[in-house]
Amino acid sequence: MAVAVSKVRFSDPQIEMAHGAGGKASRRLVEGLIAPLLLSSPGDLLGDAAHVQIDGVRVAITTDSFVVKPLRFPGGSIGELAVNGTVNDLAVSGAKPEAIVATFVIEAGLPIEVLDAEVRAMAEAARRAGVRIVGGDTKVVEHGKADQIYISTTGIGRSMPNVHVDPRAVKSGDKILISGPIGDHGITILLARGELDIEADLRSDTRSVLPMVEALAHAAGSGIHWMRDPTRGGVATSLNELAHDCRLGITIDESSVPVGDAVRGACELLGLDPLHIANEGQFLAVIAAEQADAALKALQSVPGAEDAAIIGEIREQPAGALLASTKYGATRIVDMLVGDPLPRIC
Amino acid sequence: MAVAVSKVRFSDPQIEMAHGAGGKASRRLVEGLIAPLLLSSPGDLLGDAAHVQIDGVRVAITTDSFVVKPLRFPGGSIGELAVNGTVNDLAVSGAKPEAIVATFVIEAGLPIEVLDAEVRAMAEAARRAGVRIVGGDTKVVEHGKADQIYISTTGIGRSMPNVHVDPRAVKSGDKILISGPIGDHGITILLARGELDIEADLRSDTRSVLPMVEALAHAAGSGIHWMRDPTRGGVATSLNELAHDCRLGITIDESSVPVGDAVRGACELLGLDPLHIANEGQFLAVIAAEQADAALKALQSVPGAEDAAIIGEIREQPAGALLASTKYGATRIVDMLVGDPLPRIC
Repeated sequence: MAVAVSKVRFSDPQIEMAHGAGGKASRRLVEGLIAPLLLSSPGDLLGDAAHVQIDGVRVAITTDSFVVKPLRFPGGSIGELAVNGTVNDLAVSGAKPEAIVATFVIEAGLPIEVLDAEVRAMAEAARRAGVRIVGGDTKVVEHGKADQIYISTTGIGRSMPNVHVDPRAVKSGDKILISGPIGDHGITILLARGELDIEADLRSDTRSVLPMVEALAHAAGSGIHWMRDPTRGGVATSLNELAHDCRLGITIDESSVPVGDAVRGACELLGLDPLHIANEGQFLAVIAAEQADAALKALQSVPGAEDAAIIGEIREQPAGALLASTKYGATRIVDMLVGDPLPRIC
Repeated sequence: MAVAVSKVRFSDPQIEMAHGAGGKASRRLVEGLIAPLLLSSPGDLLGDAAHVQIDGVRVAITTDSFVVKPLRFPGGSIGELAVNGTVNDLAVSGAKPEAIVATFVIEAGLPIEVLDAEVRAMAEAARRAGVRIVGGDTKVVEHGKADQIYISTTGIGRSMPNVHVDPRAVKSGDKILISGPIGDHGITILLARGELDIEADLRSDTRSVLPMVEALAHAAGSGIHWMRDPTRGGVATSLNELAHDCRLGITIDESSVPVGDAVRGACELLGLDPLHIANEGQFLAVIAAEQADAALKALQSVPGAEDAAIIGEIREQPAGALLASTKYGATRIVDMLVGDPLPRIC
């Protein structure tokens, strides 16, 4: 293996919250320090899952830590996120989840009911997603050395035949699909912290997107060029990363992006852009133009994805950038944020 | 999948440090709450790795979080432990590590040098063990919400042909091997905390045991009935768990257990039993009697395992218990501790 230690380029003196928020600062840390030092193929860390050959079989593997605050929120909890997030990372990499392992870092003094509830939430989420949890580990740290509980999950899966997700396959003219309304998870977490005097009838969208990915794979197969679940940093970050990776331009039609009233209202009040808000149960897909309508129809036929939409397309220019056309005919550049309006959303 | 929710039997009101220490309290938490709620096969969580079939190939998977304190100590650091621990869990389950993924939970304010050093330590440990690191995730929590950095690693590997580790294969007359001197890691961590006025020339034994396991597999193959790396809770805990799982008795000859002078001295001063002290670079193996001498010879031929020894054997009685015969001819029962003399050693 070749560890490319020569490519380290990261000069921040210390870790800040922004380094964990999924925006530019996160990407700089990962691309500038962790990936070049740690990975055998430094490009790997930014994808949703790595693929490894074991005895001739292609095994997908993905891992995430979860530090969401608060632990429970309308529509979900850390345990549910930990399972669904890993299921979804496998699904959007074109793999069917087979097994999950989990670790718990628990603060001494945690009431057992809290742990019990999260373990049950994980088991239930795994049951719904059709994946087995096969092992784990438990560590305890002193009271005050963790924020109740942190959970890490790793999933392995088998590659779906005919689905090859690769930014290099993306070409001008491809259409961009989203599975449903954006921003529900991030705004739910923001409101659940109770620091803002805003009330809204809103729930996290956390769920397995596997049934939707499978429907898409059935309908569009090799027409799927790329998928990603736009979690930290939202749709804007995922599409900026894609534009960067495929060296093409992306244009979205803002009025076609599904956004619920509660999210739109909260974003207007707070001066946030829904495109930057985290999602947990949605995914983006880039589909060959000629298969896009069939793909959309297949997606919309899956319960929970009725609001799926084609929101934009890939263009030659401006390479590396994401543009949004507004309903008034103007066009704006939508960049990644340095940090995130909201840390610890997953 | 069947989640055996009916088997929950855990009534402690809150999590204590002892629940993470690898002894009886840990086992009660895992067997009484986490495994029955979470796992598709509740027995899985106590083994070193689970085995999953993917497209007909048997893939081993193991996961651990690391919260060792201090982060760096003579002979190693958290990053090195995180890689070696996962490599070793795969190796002693009879699998050759193929790939590792890692997550970092980092406290805001952590100096970059600390992260940089641990990422480099991981890369170097992976290089030495011959395993690739293929992906990961980074989360940041507020200053004070983690103890500098916690690392979780998950490894996948391919099963070694002819090696089938299973407590049910263990039978009376089998011999028990240890790969080298015990207690170095735990006592090193204890002294590195600087709370005791003891000086000793001692280093953690953290290393990959894969070359030793491979030598053993080559020499004894199907004669290997069980292996385990005796980390938290030490040799006493691992052998008690084996005695419990195989429903046989285990007798060790205390004078044959390799213990370095520094560990023996520190244990005498502190009233600790070296059999309860954690190891990171040693493993136990149960070998069919007729192959034990060849296995020992093969093990001793691997650099770093010159002090490997046969330390005892499996007997019919007393079923479920570990006995140690002392050099004065007496015999004592060696139980698991409830907690551990030393939390956060890995």
